[in-house]
Amino acid sequence: MSEATHAFAGRDLFLRAAKGEKTERTPVWLMRQAGRILPEYRELRAGVPSFKHLVETPDLVQEVTLQPIHALGVDAAIIFSDILVIPEAMGLPYRMQPGKGPVFDETVNADIDVEKLRIANPAEDLNYTLEGLRKTRAALAAMGENGVPLIGFAGAPWTIMAYMIEGGGSKTFSKPRRWLHANPSGSKKLLEKITESTLLYLQAQVEAGAQALQLFDSWAGVLSPALYREFALPAIRTILDGLKQSHPEIPVIVFAKDAWFVFEDLAELPSAVMGLDWQTNPELARKRAPGRVFQGNLDPTLLYADPKDIEGKVKEMLAGFGASSQAHIANLGHGVYPDTPLDGVRAFIGTVQAGY
Amino acid sequence: MSEATHAFAGRDLFLRAAKGEKTERTPVWLMRQAGRILPEYRELRAGVPSFKHLVETPDLVQEVTLQPIHALGVDAAIIFSDILVIPEAMGLPYRMQPGKGPVFDETVNADIDVEKLRIANPAEDLNYTLEGLRKTRAALAAMGENGVPLIGFAGAPWTIMAYMIEGGGSKTFSKPRRWLHANPSGSKKLLEKITESTLLYLQAQVEAGAQALQLFDSWAGVLSPALYREFALPAIRTILDGLKQSHPEIPVIVFAKDAWFVFEDLAELPSAVMGLDWQTNPELARKRAPGRVFQGNLDPTLLYADPKDIEGKVKEMLAGFGASSQAHIANLGHGVYPDTPLDGVRAFIGTVQAGY
Repeated sequence: MSEATHAFAGRDLFLRAAKGEKTERTPVWLMRQAGRILPEYRELRAGVPSFKHLVETPDLVQEVTLQPIHALGVDAAIIFSDILVIPEAMGLPYRMQPGKGPVFDETVNADIDVEKLRIANPAEDLNYTLEGLRKTRAALAAMGENGVPLIGFAGAPWTIMAYMIEGGGSKTFSKPRRWLHANPSGSKKLLEKITESTLLYLQAQVEAGAQALQLFDSWAGVLSPALYREFALPAIRTILDGLKQSHPEIPVIVFAKDAWFVFEDLAELPSAVMGLDWQTNPELARKRAPGRVFQGNLDPTLLYADPKDIEGKVKEMLAGFGASSQAHIANLGHGVYPDTPLDGVRAFIGTVQAGY
Repeated sequence: MSEATHAFAGRDLFLRAAKGEKTERTPVWLMRQAGRILPEYRELRAGVPSFKHLVETPDLVQEVTLQPIHALGVDAAIIFSDILVIPEAMGLPYRMQPGKGPVFDETVNADIDVEKLRIANPAEDLNYTLEGLRKTRAALAAMGENGVPLIGFAGAPWTIMAYMIEGGGSKTFSKPRRWLHANPSGSKKLLEKITESTLLYLQAQVEAGAQALQLFDSWAGVLSPALYREFALPAIRTILDGLKQSHPEIPVIVFAKDAWFVFEDLAELPSAVMGLDWQTNPELARKRAPGRVFQGNLDPTLLYADPKDIEGKVKEMLAGFGASSQAHIANLGHGVYPDTPLDGVRAFIGTVQAGY
């Protein structure tokens, strides 16, 4: 039996909301809260040789993961890592190029490259994250009632495939989209390998202490409805089915960014929570998927506004989802941008926690 | 009286469809058809010092604009230029950095920068495009019944503002979005100047021979519904109203990419044609805006597939819009990607022109 099924002594608002229970107030956390918005993160980062060094050092993973809990008082912790650890664990290493983002020196170009990829072995290849989860979970437990739930995560298979073929970030990801059209069978083989690796990794994360999981399909929006349904959605469903079998008690958040065109398909997934981007109107989401638990969806650039204006807009969003403190986890509609002023972040968190 | 109102001896299928008339078959052209997909373009480009040299040399503008007419037999020509000529005409020059895209060495950072911008004077600042239009229109007229209509274009004001503040391409355009929140009055002043410049430029394009116009709101999708309605949409409406007054006979295509969340607002604009991205389902678009003329919306990466597969998918799209050869201009849902194989492009054009 994993730790995750034990009674939880901390502030469990987030977990209860994720499971669809009515809560005293709406819980709140921020995607990418453990990162460059915090001065303590920037200081720590300046003292280590690379971003990957942080990701791969469990003590630092724990420290960085807990920084926003102490500094901002958010209602959940998310393990500090990167979605690109999966390609690396499959045999395709990445590096972070300052000012540019992730770069893969080798990419997937042909069926033979897919053949060569291995299925990730989390206990070996990704132990740094698992060890980080174990340490962080223990540290949160030591905080007693001030502890918060710990979220694990991974990229959704399409998004991971997109990076493995494109070799880095892109506005269009035209290379992996080309693959789907020109080599559908190779694409499916690649997606299968990523899907299997990701499921094993998420299961290992739960065993290591993750109490909830989030799947990031960050590049969902570049696909057409037909391609999303044929390639991306089945992979997500396989992961959700696998998790439902092994860890039915763990809520999973699926955040498919810009995937408005398959909203109904996503709403039917057997996931606990549906993440929403900031372009989605909360009232409309409620109408199109009644009874769903949503996570999101404040425009991250709103946090640059005057804190007084932020308060009003946050209340508007909360009211949009229904002022019932139910079926909603407050968050941004995207990862918080690195140069966001902390006053704005605090105005957001404070407004939600004041219990509108 | 401008040239555009004269009788047109060429293949006017595109113009008639844009005006909502039933046509013998669906007309077809490709956004970015004059460009790197064509070997003759790449050859010409290799012999000139820069992309901007092409844009600013009327004889070359004419040559490049006509290349796809000869090579591909599309039903419309679009003048070879760039949306960023407007910021330059307002006092903010750009340069094209190979492998990176457009870069502005100076950007708009404060109200004082907005004050310093001038309203573009097309006859002076943008004469290279106007002269290119005059030459191209004459060359198309000389082609007699083989000539096709000539489309002029500009960026929509929000997209232009986004580049002027961000200083180049971006996945999130968080700087200009921050402006909208943190400096709404400065944002509106900037948008007003861009809007006035753009209207003057489009009117001058019609006077120089453009028979239809397209507004590209390429970065519509990064805004929330509320911000789009407050800032981006009124600017487009001002331009459409101005054109309606000065040149009521000229159809205008508004292509707001990824702006699904304001679909109904866009459908109500007094523009002749609504451009659609590839994520939008044609049947759904027809249902949500009956009676509208649409342009689009094939997934540009489909053109990498086997030509036989392309044919089937193109027919599917045509059927989705209604097989009536009415109220539809076939195009991609985005500019054609530079490395698209010509066989794929030809399969697309051929299938549409075979008159499904």
